[in-house]
Amino acid sequence: MIYNLDFLNELKRRSNDVNTALDRYLPEVSAYPGVIYEAMRHSVFAGGKRLRPVLALAASEVLDGSPDDIIPAACALELIHTYSLIHDDLPAMDNDDLRRGQPTCHKKFGEAIAILAGDALLTLAFNLITRCARVGSVTSDGLLTVVAEISEAAGVYGLVGGQVLDIISSSENIDAESLEYIHRNKTGAMYRASLRTGAILSGAGGKDRQSLTQYAEHLGMAFQITDDILDLLGDEKTIGKPVKSDIKNNKATYPALFGLNEARRMAADEAENSIRCVSQYGEKADFLIELVKFVIQRSY
Amino acid sequence: MIYNLDFLNELKRRSNDVNTALDRYLPEVSAYPGVIYEAMRHSVFAGGKRLRPVLALAASEVLDGSPDDIIPAACALELIHTYSLIHDDLPAMDNDDLRRGQPTCHKKFGEAIAILAGDALLTLAFNLITRCARVGSVTSDGLLTVVAEISEAAGVYGLVGGQVLDIISSSENIDAESLEYIHRNKTGAMYRASLRTGAILSGAGGKDRQSLTQYAEHLGMAFQITDDILDLLGDEKTIGKPVKSDIKNNKATYPALFGLNEARRMAADEAENSIRCVSQYGEKADFLIELVKFVIQRSY
Repeated sequence: MIYNLDFLNELKRRSNDVNTALDRYLPEVSAYPGVIYEAMRHSVFAGGKRLRPVLALAASEVLDGSPDDIIPAACALELIHTYSLIHDDLPAMDNDDLRRGQPTCHKKFGEAIAILAGDALLTLAFNLITRCARVGSVTSDGLLTVVAEISEAAGVYGLVGGQVLDIISSSENIDAESLEYIHRNKTGAMYRASLRTGAILSGAGGKDRQSLTQYAEHLGMAFQITDDILDLLGDEKTIGKPVKSDIKNNKATYPALFGLNEARRMAADEAENSIRCVSQYGEKADFLIELVKFVIQRSY
Repeated sequence: MIYNLDFLNELKRRSNDVNTALDRYLPEVSAYPGVIYEAMRHSVFAGGKRLRPVLALAASEVLDGSPDDIIPAACALELIHTYSLIHDDLPAMDNDDLRRGQPTCHKKFGEAIAILAGDALLTLAFNLITRCARVGSVTSDGLLTVVAEISEAAGVYGLVGGQVLDIISSSENIDAESLEYIHRNKTGAMYRASLRTGAILSGAGGKDRQSLTQYAEHLGMAFQITDDILDLLGDEKTIGKPVKSDIKNNKATYPALFGLNEARRMAADEAENSIRCVSQYGEKADFLIELVKFVIQRSY
């Protein structure tokens, strides 16, 4: 695969900025009782591309907002992502031992602390949103709308709903519609909320919000189909978690349902549609466009 | 015990109003995928006195706010309480089979769905806050402050932090300070947030907020000490959950640490202090005062 090296460096720079902010917002492990702070930090800093906060900040940039003013809200998206991974990995769910090359939260801290670390991160996420300064286009009204959007995306009509269907389905009884439901909710909803967070807090009107929402929906699908392909073909060391876990867990996937070639074509289609949704922003959308290409070409 | 019957009827009337609202806010079980809505409703409607929403609405009343305008935020407090019970009951935590006379969520729906039902209720709580109408003293600024207060009270510096210490402590290694930490956070923080939600959304100033905060802190302690006594002496059928579970689970309690008589005296002291904090509101505080008396005299 040939990546755009400038883009990779830029993504890394932006991820590092997010990491610096996350480190500031997460309580020190010296706080009492320490084990929960340790568990939260273990999972948040186990790696990860920080795509959700990076997307929120990039949306703000494209719409001439002030990305610096919305960093707490951007970080909230990552905390919700991390909480969902911690709970998904639990023995009662996917029962995974490794995540991003490290022991999962419950493997290291036990199930009780892992459940509570997830709960704490989800709760802290909503607290972080309220810490955005009310300056420029970032208003109390806008922040309250963001609380509404993110809580909808993370709840039963989004992330949780997708995970529920994922848990109760298996590869034998699933159809294309259910598979799409899972991914539209489990991955798509939070991508959508990420772009919309950036748009809302930039004071963007309905048309811009809609363009970025559609960009996010296609990007989410492209990401998820690629994830399924990577689980089938990827290298365990590069990805940082066991491959072929979908087969092991009897999970439905795009390659299993449509075949590898068709799945690849679907990911490419979604990517193309995603890029089309932001083409009207010209050069300002370069980063968002390169990010789509990265998402379907990545090996991790 | 002799209760004030008028108060009991009034409490019941108010709890019923909260139940009606909760029923409106919780998705129908006919929604897809149904099992998660069923699990959420099972736990929310398994009973419960609805003290937290009732307290938020009563605070609004005392401060001449508009209780009707803040019902969604009041219900949010109950959803967070229910989520915390679902997660506390899990096998990895207290491993309880019964709650309010009904099978616990994981007993009925399995662990995975119980974890997700808790996650969904916590997330929905923050969504509900945003649904309060912005009228009168209920402003976007106020609602955002409530999101901040409730997320702080429910997080590592409150509910989750208390539960963590409860999990890692046992009756052998706990001292009075740690026991107070557990209860101040596990129960107290959400009582505090309940009263403060009502106060903030009534546009109350610092002095009123402080009085109701202190009322809540003493009430929370009175409630928790009484809970410990009920677990030791109460009737399983009346309480709706197994008694002596604290001894079974090797949990520290006030009667165990201080003796039954001293625990009773402590509860009475906390109740008296609580009542003193709202005496300046005269007749308007009658309900809050009767509620304190009920909390230490109740048999369930």
